[in-house]
Amino acid sequence: MIVDVSKKILIVGLGLLGGSYARALKRFGFHISAITKEQSSIEYALREGLIDQGSTQLDARIIGQADLVVFALYPHIFVEWIEQNQHLLKSGALITDVTGVKGGIVYKIQDMLRPDVEFIAAHPMAGLEVSGVENSTDKIFAGANYIVTPTSKNTPEAIQTCMELGRLLGFSNVATLSPEEHDEMIGFLSQLTHCIAITLMTCNDKADMEKFTGDSFRDLTRIARINDLMWSELFVANKPALLEQMNLFIDKFNELKTMLETEDMDGMRRMMRHSTERRALFDKK
Amino acid sequence: MIVDVSKKILIVGLGLLGGSYARALKRFGFHISAITKEQSSIEYALREGLIDQGSTQLDARIIGQADLVVFALYPHIFVEWIEQNQHLLKSGALITDVTGVKGGIVYKIQDMLRPDVEFIAAHPMAGLEVSGVENSTDKIFAGANYIVTPTSKNTPEAIQTCMELGRLLGFSNVATLSPEEHDEMIGFLSQLTHCIAITLMTCNDKADMEKFTGDSFRDLTRIARINDLMWSELFVANKPALLEQMNLFIDKFNELKTMLETEDMDGMRRMMRHSTERRALFDKK
Repeated sequence: MIVDVSKKILIVGLGLLGGSYARALKRFGFHISAITKEQSSIEYALREGLIDQGSTQLDARIIGQADLVVFALYPHIFVEWIEQNQHLLKSGALITDVTGVKGGIVYKIQDMLRPDVEFIAAHPMAGLEVSGVENSTDKIFAGANYIVTPTSKNTPEAIQTCMELGRLLGFSNVATLSPEEHDEMIGFLSQLTHCIAITLMTCNDKADMEKFTGDSFRDLTRIARINDLMWSELFVANKPALLEQMNLFIDKFNELKTMLETEDMDGMRRMMRHSTERRALFDKK
Repeated sequence: MIVDVSKKILIVGLGLLGGSYARALKRFGFHISAITKEQSSIEYALREGLIDQGSTQLDARIIGQADLVVFALYPHIFVEWIEQNQHLLKSGALITDVTGVKGGIVYKIQDMLRPDVEFIAAHPMAGLEVSGVENSTDKIFAGANYIVTPTSKNTPEAIQTCMELGRLLGFSNVATLSPEEHDEMIGFLSQLTHCIAITLMTCNDKADMEKFTGDSFRDLTRIARINDLMWSELFVANKPALLEQMNLFIDKFNELKTMLETEDMDGMRRMMRHSTERRALFDKK
């Protein structure tokens, strides 16, 4: 199946990301349904023209007619949903997701899934610090990465369809990685940075520090305001890869500490020059 | 001495910060001199009307006529300058500085200084990622902190004068801290954040990470582009306080790592909620 506008799309979980998918895809005229927890989310999406129909129930008719199903749920809820409700999916349906960790999810879902339904995993690397369909916007996809993480169980057609979906959504970069490469990358670039930010924010509770703070500290702790329910789950779901990245960080931090203790100026300056050079690679192009 | 416009001010070290001092103070009509390494800096400052006179030499006449001398030099160069040239200072002169660490500098300078000259230390917490008098601007002082760090050797008049200087420069907040309080605060808010940024930037050299980077990683590594000469010196100059802050950070980071290893969801969520609450204190007012 290659995405064409006669296909019916179902979004399960109509929050910020699910709503933003609906908003972006509706521009092309797709028939879009939604299943989500809150009636108010359905009503908002109908009123705004983001979806054609929706339900807070497991509506067998809505689920059974969908050619492409996007799961925008917390990881463990996604797994439970498939366990309990996969019999409702249409034969030949393609399902995909938005989960921020892959290794612990992709194989589990593919192993339990009916043979006549295919799961191709994807991670849209976009978000906002607010939540809910009311805050949805397709602007978050511009300039962002969409990573498809196929396994040996995936067909070339499903991989192509999923990549095309990423381009239709408006992502600037659409790429594939193995689930393991993805988890290492996300463990380093996203999860480790959040671990560092919350540690920095909580390791010294001395009063009045905020009176003297400057932009450096504010930059390093912007993401220290964190959704504890979601991130604790994502950390555990990516435990081996994240622990490896945390250990890399601790080893290097201890190296720097030893150089400071021994006043190894050359060593510190070498590390700083390496840091300066490497940071240039990460500038916005 | 309370600052009045008949006083003659000398700036030693006409870089970004020294130049910005000159620019801010010239608005009030002070007579301003400069001594600095490069003839081109003097020429630029004269052409722009930032200073009335300047020299790349130890001009005894210029130094001897200054009522207030601001040293905007690297810490070890400041100490050497005083050792070698303090005989040139006018009797009754007040000297101050811009050094980012205090405990290791203030007592050393005060102990070696002539009894008829007073040193009152200050840390203007302002800067830019560029250097040189050509980039100087008094805009960097708006919204920023100016910290005076008096000791028992300082007179109330010198403390008042130095605080008034901070206000004349345009700093939004002018406060006093002991050198020790200052160094703990700066060790945490500024130096530890730089240690973290350069560690994150250098702990994983895997290729192609930059293709997938998002704003979180960019925020945490903005300051990983670093002046290696200056920061290695500042780290060592504040070694005991910085090591203490590094240890606080390592202990908390290891706590988080243990919670992840044992999948202690409650513990992680408690830490994240603590982080979220504490971050709110640090929002820009």
